[in-house]
Formats: sequence, C-alpha cells, structure tokens
Amino acid sequence: MAWAYLARVAEPPCAAVIALVDAIGPVDAASAIRRRSVPDGFGAVLPATAARHDADCATADLDAAAAVGARLVTRSDAEWPAWSLLALSQADTAARGGAPLALWVRGPARLDELVTDSVALIGSRAASPYGAHVTGLLAAGLAGEGFTVISGGAFGVDGAAHKAVVRSGGVTAAVMACGIDRDYPAAHSALLGEIARTGAVISEYPPGTTAARHRFLTRNRLVASLSGGTVVVEAGRRSGAANTAAWARKLGRPLGAVPGPVTSATSVGCHRMIADGLAVLVSDVASVVALVRPDGGGDVGRGRTKPTDGLSEDELRVHDAIPARGGVTIEEIAFAAGLEIGAARTALARLEVGGLVENVAGQWRLASG
Amino acid sequence: MAWAYLARVAEPPCAAVIALVDAIGPVDAASAIRRRSVPDGFGAVLPATAARHDADCATADLDAAAAVGARLVTRSDAEWPAWSLLALSQADTAARGGAPLALWVRGPARLDELVTDSVALIGSRAASPYGAHVTGLLAAGLAGEGFTVISGGAFGVDGAAHKAVVRSGGVTAAVMACGIDRDYPAAHSALLGEIARTGAVISEYPPGTTAARHRFLTRNRLVASLSGGTVVVEAGRRSGAANTAAWARKLGRPLGAVPGPVTSATSVGCHRMIADGLAVLVSDVASVVALVRPDGGGDVGRGRTKPTDGLSEDELRVHDAIPARGGVTIEEIAFAAGLEIGAARTALARLEVGGLVENVAGQWRLASG
Repeated sequence: MAWAYLARVAEPPCAAVIALVDAIGPVDAASAIRRRSVPDGFGAVLPATAARHDADCATADLDAAAAVGARLVTRSDAEWPAWSLLALSQADTAARGGAPLALWVRGPARLDELVTDSVALIGSRAASPYGAHVTGLLAAGLAGEGFTVISGGAFGVDGAAHKAVVRSGGVTAAVMACGIDRDYPAAHSALLGEIARTGAVISEYPPGTTAARHRFLTRNRLVASLSGGTVVVEAGRRSGAANTAAWARKLGRPLGAVPGPVTSATSVGCHRMIADGLAVLVSDVASVVALVRPDGGGDVGRGRTKPTDGLSEDELRVHDAIPARGGVTIEEIAFAAGLEIGAARTALARLEVGGLVENVAGQWRLASG
Repeated sequence: MAWAYLARVAEPPCAAVIALVDAIGPVDAASAIRRRSVPDGFGAVLPATAARHDADCATADLDAAAAVGARLVTRSDAEWPAWSLLALSQADTAARGGAPLALWVRGPARLDELVTDSVALIGSRAASPYGAHVTGLLAAGLAGEGFTVISGGAFGVDGAAHKAVVRSGGVTAAVMACGIDRDYPAAHSALLGEIARTGAVISEYPPGTTAARHRFLTRNRLVASLSGGTVVVEAGRRSGAANTAAWARKLGRPLGAVPGPVTSATSVGCHRMIADGLAVLVSDVASVVALVRPDGGGDVGRGRTKPTDGLSEDELRVHDAIPARGGVTIEEIAFAAGLEIGAARTALARLEVGGLVENVAGQWRLASG
C-alpha cells in the first residue's frame, strides 16, 4: 500500500521521493509525505508531492492493476532489474530522468529475467513496408536466439516488433507512456493483451494514467535502460526514436541502426546516426547479436566460433572467393578476392595448412571436412 | 615514338622501366631496352621487357590511337596528373602496382583538369534497379556540382554513372582494362563514344589490348588514384568494387559507400564496409561532396555556410523541431526535439538572440528574415 501510494504521489521519475524511501523505508516515507513533515535534507519531496499527497489511490490502483492481471514491482523486490537501471541513477543522467521507484507490470515475465538478454527495436510510427518487414525479421530472429524484444507498443516499428515475437512464440515487453490498463493506441488492444499473456506490459505510471507527450520522453529512457542494446530500424529526420537512441548512448548501451534505401524518408534518421558515428550499422540478426554481445556468448556473431576465426584479411578474402561447391583456379581466386596472384598463393598455402582448402587436380576447393 | 614503344614493351605497370626512363630519358631508355643493354642497377628492366622488346609497334599504336581520336599522355607532359598519381609511387603501394608510365587518352578532357574535382562512382556490374537509380542521382548531381565522375565503363553501376553524366552535360571519364580503341563491353560502344566526345576514355594499355582479368585489378588502382574520393554505390559480398575500395583506402583517399535495403544482396558489400569502419556512409550528393571536400569549398555539404553553423546539438535539434511555416509551443518543440522543457527553453533563447527564431504571441517560429 505504501509503495502504491508513493508510486503515484509524485510524477515519476522523482529522485527526491526515491531518496526519502531509501533513507527511511516506504512506510515511513509515505507517512511523512502524507503528514507534510519530512526529515531534514529531504525538503525537495514536499513541492514534488504537494499536488497529490492527500489523494490516496493506493487501494484503487492495486485493484485496477489486479483487474488486468498486473502487479507492482518495487525497488525492494527480488525481481527488480537493479543492474539494468543502475546507469539511470548516475549523476549526469539522473538530472534528466533518474531510476524509477517502481514499475507496474502486466504479464508473467519476471523483470530481472526479461532484461537479461534483451534488445530494444524501435523506430518510426509511420514505418514503411520495408521497415515493417525488416523489423519482423529481426524481432523473430532475436526471439529465436532467446532475446527479449523490448519496444514501446506504438504503431509502426514498435508494433511490427511485438507482433513478430508474439507470432514466433518468443518473449516481448512493451514499455508504455500510460498506465498498464490503458490500451494505447486503442487499435493495439488485442496486441497488448497478447504481449501481456507471455511477456510484459510495463509502465512507471499508475493505472489509469493517460499517455502524454512528456511521458513518451520519460518512457524512452526506460526502453533504453531495460535493454542490453537498442536498434533503430527506421527513423525519419525528426523521429522520436532519436530520443531513445540518445538515451541508449547516454547510458552507455550499444546503439545500432538499420540502413535502408537512401531514397526513403524513413531511413534518413538511421543513415544520419550511422554517418555521424552515433550508431553501428546492423543489417541482420547476427550483427545485432554481435552488437549487444560484443564478447561473444553466441554462435550467431559474424565469424565467431567459425573455422575461419583468426584468419588474416587476405586469407578471409581468398576463402570467401572459393565457391561452396566445385573448384576454381588460382587466377579466378585472385580476381574474385581482388588480390595479386602472389598474395593469393600465400593465403592459399596457409589455408591449405589449416585444413580449410584443398587442391584437387590443380583446382582449389573448400576442404570437404 | 620512344614513349609509345616504352608503353608497350613491358606489361604495365612496370616500375623498372619507369626508373630507367626517369634516369636516362625516354629515347635512351627505349634504345637501351632494344639493344638489351641497360645501365648498372637497372637489370630488372631486361626480364620485364624480354618478351616484347623486339616487336616495335610504336607507329602502329600511335596510328591506332589517332584513328579513334586518342593521344598518348606521358609522365613528361604538362597535363600529366602527377599529384593524383603520386601515392602510387610510394613504397607500400608501388609493390602492388606503381604509377603508370603513360596513359592513352581518348577525348578532349585534359587529365590534370579532369582529376581536380573528381569522384569515382563504382559498384556491382549486376546493379539492382535501386542501385542504378541512386547511381544516376549521384552522378548527375555531382556533375552539376562541377565534379568529374570517374568509373570503369562496365555494366551496372559504372554504366549508370557514365550515362547520367553524359545526359546531364557533365564530364565523365572511363578508365579501361583494355585499349582505348576496344569497346568493352561491346554493348557500351555508343556510350564510350559519348564519353570520349566530352570527357575521356583512359587506359594504361596500348591500343588493341584486350580486357583480361589481371588488368581489371591493375585498372582499379587507376580509378582510385585519379579520383579525389571513391564511392561504392552497390556491391555484393564479393564484388570487384571491393578491390577499388581497398585501393582508395591504401592511397589515403576518402571512401564512401551507399546503404540500401538490408534485404538486397547487392548492398551487402556496402553495409559491410560501413559496419567495419572502412567506408563512410553517404546518402546523397551533399554527403559525397562533404566526403571528398572535408575542408569545405562547396556550399553543398551538410550545414556548411548555413545560418545554423556553429549551433550546439540542442540548438540544432530545437531549430529542426520548428516547422518551416507556422508557430509551435515550447512543449511541442521540446517533444519533437526529444529535449526537456528547460533545455529547449535555453536553446530557444540562444536561437532568438542569434536571430534564427522569433516568438510571436507565445508561439515559436523560424525568423522571417
């Protein structure tokens, strides 16, 4: 009851309330706020809670949450994703939206498990058919690799991501700018129900809260912080996705962007992020996995745990220049690899010693093993 | 006559012959090679010229060139693009293809003027419709900015680049892997004629030389070195364009790559170059100009010589968030810019002082001036 009261008494995020709770516990904090009498040093709590301190909706909020199968997860709960949210508490980020006090969660997924291997797929609400298609490919592929796909439940890229994961039987989480009992947008009512059935619909805002512009910005920081990395699939010149992307960078999380046709307005933001060195170009599931798991830990990353590991640039090019079936001459290899004959010969010799290629009747082919 | 003899007597590029010419001049060099008697220290010339030293085709070559309106431009000529080719003579590149001794040039363009503002547009022979379209946009746009567009005269991206420049009345140069009198590919015969009418068809190989695989690799270094920068518009996983791109990097020239749909096989090479940090993502004429003229010198580069020069990131975002017509509230601006209200207010104040925005009846708009 105290947590539910505290979760509504100030517009989240409110660092002052969190500091008070950390100092004297939620029950005493709720009581102090109600009585308008807080310990020395916590004076900032009073103006932040002035408007709502005497409207206690705790019971109603918990009932409303229960009615849609949701629960309140707090900073004191075992499943609290403290590690993911840690960066939000750091000095330079806290000023623009610190860690949340609590999160309303609708769905069976545990927050700490949800964030363990997670990627945010975000982008334009007005996604192009290309953007929606690529979002679906990435979302289903990442779900297949065991990742939680996190997004914002909106039209466009968000919706395409959630839908593809739901269809593929994976886990997806929608972080909302409104209460977990408000289906926003309304047309996503059924989709949000599906997400909540196996994953999680998450919000920092109490039940009944309506989506408002400033809440999207506040919500964006949660999308970025709950995810191991963020990928912008499509974004126009002034997309809101740029804000989530900026949060990912501020929090030190990997940021990727998917390229598209340079003739497409919905790829302009992605291209700019890549060209400006803010985002890494990602083009498929493997490159996203490599982005968020730079130390490996998967067998999807490019070249990782492959027999071609550790090859030099020339050797890789020569290896790539040999077709999967059949043999080719050294001249054909040198040409395809863009190497001088001598360099190709050196690389072939090393690859042969390494057992990767073999010479059969004067033609080079990939080793049958 | 001596230069024409020397241009054929060894398969180009031949550093030994160039060294001899530099030491004793072309007439004595030709004579020494014919007599098989070279000065001490130039012994490498003999094996390189063994096969062709007694077949003097100089007259025939000059006649064949003249027949197609071509001339032989040598290292001693005023129009020799010595500065562009300098990097080819440096130790680490010379081993894989040094500077040329001479170039056969068909067309009115002077080589030194041709290379002054030049960009190579290269890519897959099997360009997609998207690739051909974007190539045309870039080529015509660069020609309109006064750039020479250099390519290899091949099908696909090369052809689309040349064609767009010819149509737009600009100057384009095709660097060939065969003699300037061989129309290769044959289907580009008319196009090569058009290129030669206003620009240049260029080759290091004597008239009559047929295209051969190793000559494409050798030719690629000339495309890269004659250009102020190279842009790969489309390239598959094993495109020959990767070789030209590698030359551009080796020569210290800017390298750009155009992104495309991640679902397109002909963009895989471009995406890989960008993701690996080998190429800069370029998406339009302005970004190509910015690539090859990093110090400015044009008014096309992004933001260059614009009133928004020198703005901070926040100020730019706020400026971008204000529509071209009509006013918006600070809340709308903060949302579109992905900024807190306070940060947006600070940026607006600075923009107002700078005369870029104005506040009319509580709404912000771009300054009418």
